[in-house]
Amino acid sequence: MNSLKGKAVLCQSGGPTAVINASACGVIQTVLANPDTFTGIYGGLNGILGVLREELFDISKENPSEIDRLKRTPSAALGSCRHKLRGLDESKADYERILDVFKAHDIRYFFYIGGNDSMDTADKLGALARETDYEMIAVGVPKTIDNDLVCTDHCPGYGSVAKFNATAVMEAGRDTEALWTHDTTTVHEVMGRNAGWIAASTGLARRSDQDAPHIILLPEVPFEKDLFVAKVRECLDRYNRCFVACGEGVKTPDGRYLGEAGGEFAKDAFGHTQLGGAANTLRAIIETEVGVKARTNRAGTAQRNAMHFASKTDVEEAYLVGKAAVETAIRGISGKMVTLERASGGGDYTCTTGLADLQEVANGVKMVPPEFISEDGFGITDAFREYATPLIRGQADLEIGDDGLPIYARLAKHMVARKSGSDYKIR
Amino acid sequence: MNSLKGKAVLCQSGGPTAVINASACGVIQTVLANPDTFTGIYGGLNGILGVLREELFDISKENPSEIDRLKRTPSAALGSCRHKLRGLDESKADYERILDVFKAHDIRYFFYIGGNDSMDTADKLGALARETDYEMIAVGVPKTIDNDLVCTDHCPGYGSVAKFNATAVMEAGRDTEALWTHDTTTVHEVMGRNAGWIAASTGLARRSDQDAPHIILLPEVPFEKDLFVAKVRECLDRYNRCFVACGEGVKTPDGRYLGEAGGEFAKDAFGHTQLGGAANTLRAIIETEVGVKARTNRAGTAQRNAMHFASKTDVEEAYLVGKAAVETAIRGISGKMVTLERASGGGDYTCTTGLADLQEVANGVKMVPPEFISEDGFGITDAFREYATPLIRGQADLEIGDDGLPIYARLAKHMVARKSGSDYKIR
Repeated sequence: MNSLKGKAVLCQSGGPTAVINASACGVIQTVLANPDTFTGIYGGLNGILGVLREELFDISKENPSEIDRLKRTPSAALGSCRHKLRGLDESKADYERILDVFKAHDIRYFFYIGGNDSMDTADKLGALARETDYEMIAVGVPKTIDNDLVCTDHCPGYGSVAKFNATAVMEAGRDTEALWTHDTTTVHEVMGRNAGWIAASTGLARRSDQDAPHIILLPEVPFEKDLFVAKVRECLDRYNRCFVACGEGVKTPDGRYLGEAGGEFAKDAFGHTQLGGAANTLRAIIETEVGVKARTNRAGTAQRNAMHFASKTDVEEAYLVGKAAVETAIRGISGKMVTLERASGGGDYTCTTGLADLQEVANGVKMVPPEFISEDGFGITDAFREYATPLIRGQADLEIGDDGLPIYARLAKHMVARKSGSDYKIR
Repeated sequence: MNSLKGKAVLCQSGGPTAVINASACGVIQTVLANPDTFTGIYGGLNGILGVLREELFDISKENPSEIDRLKRTPSAALGSCRHKLRGLDESKADYERILDVFKAHDIRYFFYIGGNDSMDTADKLGALARETDYEMIAVGVPKTIDNDLVCTDHCPGYGSVAKFNATAVMEAGRDTEALWTHDTTTVHEVMGRNAGWIAASTGLARRSDQDAPHIILLPEVPFEKDLFVAKVRECLDRYNRCFVACGEGVKTPDGRYLGEAGGEFAKDAFGHTQLGGAANTLRAIIETEVGVKARTNRAGTAQRNAMHFASKTDVEEAYLVGKAAVETAIRGISGKMVTLERASGGGDYTCTTGLADLQEVANGVKMVPPEFISEDGFGITDAFREYATPLIRGQADLEIGDDGLPIYARLAKHMVARKSGSDYKIR
């Protein structure tokens, strides 16, 4: 145990997931269990914005049962944001403001749950604190459905979005199978702006040749219209139907998003460009070039919050990384992100935590590697199945109300009085 | 028990649901349990198309455990279709063809699981059979996520799509709540081309003022742009965010679908009409008229097959109506559809089956009544909650494989040899 004593602040950042609150719960319960180190725990309202605006709330005043319910609650209960701080040289004032707020409340521990931008912020903040001799510990907690953080085997949030999307594709695939005489093709769009991990996960639904998805489009594989059209035709010949799962981030060979490049590929009957996502572009291509009707599905934000069918493994690991972040801080270690490390070799899947430099995480993006993508680029390999299957196993606990629907936590958010002025303008 | 002995044929029709296979299972298991009446049971491959094409398969040759698994399998395992037979006067030949196929295989019992078009077909077929002295019994089994059949309290399929959509809206609503500083509004489109029962069900997610959906748009309430824009602004003032649930069938005051009338309301930056669904039109209106960013969610066919979170009540009732259809036929009753009758008065929800004339069901459509719609037209009433809540209760059984995903049935479909020629051309 290190000798630094003070308050902790916890922030959630970026797109919500089914399990980011489980990580928050891991942080909160571990902080509260260690009063020798932590004199309190505040939440930043809407991530780092809450610190910049000094909008902090006292988490220790929340009902403990509501805190525990965070394990079973999707989205970001503390509030999230998409605010990205610029570099230290560009907007040093923002970082100084954060430290001022920390100093005003004697905040000595900063736990940031987020993706690589958040790790970058935590890292820069730690650097400035060292520079100005403010003793502070910053530890990152990984979170992203996109599963694209480096230094970690996988990211909390991914297992649940993968499980939900694989199931939705399995189920919608049965719809196309039943109604192929009318709705011959379906395009099912999933999230993943840069990497194709989520799109790849839909392939887990394909246990046999008949099963959807017949075609998977990954951002890692540049979209070639002719190859795609030929593949759709091949599926129609073989199965009388075709189910396509595509990542929203699929790109043309020159690097533009398919959803934005739609006009080049296909226009509607009035010559209008099709707008609004990869699925709509693909539908237009299928209807124009192949000449069959296509449907589109796009669950949107519902997919990343699908706690009702979350992975138990994912929820438990999300809690674990939150807990490990606090234990790391108690040991006096700063500037690290907690990672998930899979035990290599045979036997059942086991996973422990490790640590990586925040800076290293901040600078990397992990794409789906070639060995996980089938040779023709339209599917996944057994190696990917072996990687992803353990992550989606198990049904997470769910609390159901008398009305038949899940019960999710909502924090009371008792705001802390301001101590450092309310007139700060974020750069 | 009536004295008519012969084979049964079972067809599924129209859009799949999470529980249409549970109804099929109820029919099949009850037929197989009554060999004194039924000499066999065939399935029509892709609904009535399978009968017209004489593409029948022998259900009694399926593995009994796979038949039982139909209770836990979404979509239409026998295959479905959207083929609508015209009137007896217009295409009598089609009806005669069906009777010819029935006669060739000694099919004396026709069980049709579907919506009002299917009930119409079953009714007309029964009339022609009587006219031509072919002894045959036709019984309808209700099925539609749209919940718009008359003569029945509700329709199998509705409870499950309602439960899934209410949950998805609850979960996506938490996303908007967490990220309101960036994604201020969300439009979540659900199915329901004519009636607003599904859109209304999303209102079950709203237990408190803070909860999504803040606005529900029903096809029963003509869309008035100015009122909608004012309501969105009101929500933004009150909650800092706005979550809109809309039925795909929302119409303009002159009766056109909102998804098709988009161009009148809003064009994109290039002056192009926004195409593709009510949600996209609403997004364009919000971004243009209110000036905040909007996201859209549209689960598409995944919502109606969401067996992974189906209502136990719905699954049990779906099985029950299938079983009751066969029991009705055994009693020698024809020309009826099985209905669901809710016990009136206080106490717990209980539901039994009844019967309605096929013709009456065929000719009606049940819209959401005014007493279920809030005064301002943007929400539901407590009376609707009382109606719908019992239908979504309970978690249906689910079989999960070692890979963490549901296991669903797929029938082997042993085809029956043709007896009446393969050259029939459907009118």
